[in-house]
Amino acid sequence: MPRVVTLTTDFGTGSGYVAEMKGRLLHARAPITLVDIAHDVPAHDIRAAAWLVGQACPAFPPGSLHLVVVDPGVGTTRRLLWARVGDQEFLCPDNGVLSRVLASVPAPVARSLHVAPAASATFHGRDVLAPAAVALLEGAEPASLGPPAGPIVRLSWPEVRETATGIHGEVVHVDAFGNLVTNLPAVLWPQLAAAGRLRVGDHDVATVVRTYGDAPRGTLVALVGSQDAIEAAVVEGNAAERLAAGMGTPVTIPCDRSP
Amino acid sequence: MPRVVTLTTDFGTGSGYVAEMKGRLLHARAPITLVDIAHDVPAHDIRAAAWLVGQACPAFPPGSLHLVVVDPGVGTTRRLLWARVGDQEFLCPDNGVLSRVLASVPAPVARSLHVAPAASATFHGRDVLAPAAVALLEGAEPASLGPPAGPIVRLSWPEVRETATGIHGEVVHVDAFGNLVTNLPAVLWPQLAAAGRLRVGDHDVATVVRTYGDAPRGTLVALVGSQDAIEAAVVEGNAAERLAAGMGTPVTIPCDRSP
Amino acid sequence: MPRVVTLTTDFGTGSGYVAEMKGRLLHARAPITLVDIAHDVPAHDIRAAAWLVGQACPAFPPGSLHLVVVDPGVGTTRRLLWARVGDQEFLCPDNGVLSRVLASVPAPVARSLHVAPAASATFHGRDVLAPAAVALLEGAEPASLGPPAGPIVRLSWPEVRETATGIHGEVVHVDAFGNLVTNLPAVLWPQLAAAGRLRVGDHDVATVVRTYGDAPRGTLVALVGSQDAIEAAVVEGNAAERLAAGMGTPVTIPCDRSP
Repeated sequence: MPRVVTLTTDFGTGSGYVAEMKGRLLHARAPITLVDIAHDVPAHDIRAAAWLVGQACPAFPPGSLHLVVVDPGVGTTRRLLWARVGDQEFLCPDNGVLSRVLASVPAPVARSLHVAPAASATFHGRDVLAPAAVALLEGAEPASLGPPAGPIVRLSWPEVRETATGIHGEVVHVDAFGNLVTNLPAVLWPQLAAAGRLRVGDHDVATVVRTYGDAPRGTLVALVGSQDAIEAAVVEGNAAERLAAGMGTPVTIPCDRSP
Repeated sequence: MPRVVTLTTDFGTGSGYVAEMKGRLLHARAPITLVDIAHDVPAHDIRAAAWLVGQACPAFPPGSLHLVVVDPGVGTTRRLLWARVGDQEFLCPDNGVLSRVLASVPAPVARSLHVAPAASATFHGRDVLAPAAVALLEGAEPASLGPPAGPIVRLSWPEVRETATGIHGEVVHVDAFGNLVTNLPAVLWPQLAAAGRLRVGDHDVATVVRTYGDAPRGTLVALVGSQDAIEAAVVEGNAAERLAAGMGTPVTIPCDRSP
Repeated sequence: MPRVVTLTTDFGTGSGYVAEMKGRLLHARAPITLVDIAHDVPAHDIRAAAWLVGQACPAFPPGSLHLVVVDPGVGTTRRLLWARVGDQEFLCPDNGVLSRVLASVPAPVARSLHVAPAASATFHGRDVLAPAAVALLEGAEPASLGPPAGPIVRLSWPEVRETATGIHGEVVHVDAFGNLVTNLPAVLWPQLAAAGRLRVGDHDVATVVRTYGDAPRGTLVALVGSQDAIEAAVVEGNAAERLAAGMGTPVTIPCDRSP
């Protein structure tokens, strides 16, 4: 079977940068299946990239190779990495984009990539990561790419806190439907069901359901979504717009039913 | 040759849901070619999905497998289907997304999919359709996926009506150029040519041409487009904006030339 | 290895036209790898398409076949071409989309395609170019597609001029980050470094750097970008918005440091 190679960038689609990378990757003398994860990561948003990488990459077959190019520090002293996390491999800048996939991995196997003097200072995705990928696809050992990386950059991720008034978290992702995905894990479902509501910023989401279609169109609902996390949604509508909420908006499962 | 597997969703590209599905599909122990039909179907818009599926899917090689995930009823009692229509196969919710490909097929071969208890309630594309696709790709018989489906949901589609004043239809699709595709079939070309104009809402489109470039830039034109239907367009411009028209706007081929 | 076939269009993604072309291409009885260059070329913008084609297509493996369908003249007397430029092949309208890849090629090998009478007048990408691609992929000789093309259309491209006050060019591309790519080539780096600034429209870009991260966030910088050209950027920001600049905005490397 061809090896899967994925791309996650903030390049947009209209600029040709993604195509330049694909062109280089397809020079590999080995069959590959190219997959776009996303190219509309908000520009320079390492945190958004880390979310996507954590959500999408573990779904791929063992041995898949994931190139992540959200790289505001390109050409500076920040390092470039090859890393193996579980059964997946990554090529990316050492700037935190692996934070979520590394959440439960204390010390991944990783290498700090050699950068050839001829590489541009502004497009290491094309000039360093793509050639490294081609080398790996053609059978090179990761050790040939550079020395062991040692500790790699991890962004802090918002933590869930429990207080006298409830269990507190925040919105960590807004999807294309406007669903508000929180960092409250699915295991808090009994507490959510008992509370019967979720606070999102200053708003009360007072309908707790099993799936979107369990309430009439337009209803604000709280549920366990597909990311094993509690989320707020509007049935066939857009919760982010309705609640003027987004990344970082605080959410709370209140510890009693009083408003 | 690898089997073609297509995806049509309303997930957008930035949320990772499409990538989660592709990751699962690529676990199949069989070579596949993944093709994106579109992921920017308007959220929850079954009718728009049905249009796209009807336009694009029949163009693919025999035996292609099309996953369609525009599914506002996910997790409720609506069924999930496998269907063979002509030489194409589909996996989708039973909510009308097949309406256009089924237009001339009275009783397709279809199965109602088993849903495993472990499936999430909110993402059946990933948790039911993708595994069913993998099973099919690896040689499973459709009959193993579930019982015969019986009648499946079909949306009503606007009909062409003929009256004393003309032949009446409506806009059924607006493409990215702003061209207004109608439900008036190409066989009405002689009537359009004889009338010399097309009414679109309150506007007269008074130039009838064979192709866009047959009139000067900026001209409002009526013609037979690539979907075997009569459409209204602005040469190198945007008819939807110019005429403030869209899905459902009435169109008429008047039966004489008087205004 | 499968042959690479790329697509560059102004169709958008939601209309199904791209999928119709892919469906036809996948009928080829030969293994192919389909790659999207871009489908969000501004509608009818031949110049923008020519830029993208020049940037992206040369990056692909020898023998790749590039379909370019930005074609406001579809169905008129404009010709359709097959061309071999360097080690890449193209199928496209003869309207200038090859201008940049042809910049240094006086007389490419090219054929003017036969158009079958049954082809639609409005979608030659699907009805002429895709079948020609299938024929080539299945081993047809280019000569079988039509007669030698003779001279083909080339758009004039803005030239760099040197005057007493400096070296003058213009913005020729704005990428998704808002970086302003100019037609001033990378070989002018010493002059830029000596001047210490770049004029962009009425604005002075007074920080010259080697890469984006060499100045604090929000700084306006001039540098040599990844397209071997001088560009203006805002560190982790958007230069096009900040300077209200775009395609055609004049840029100058002043010949002294006085403002």
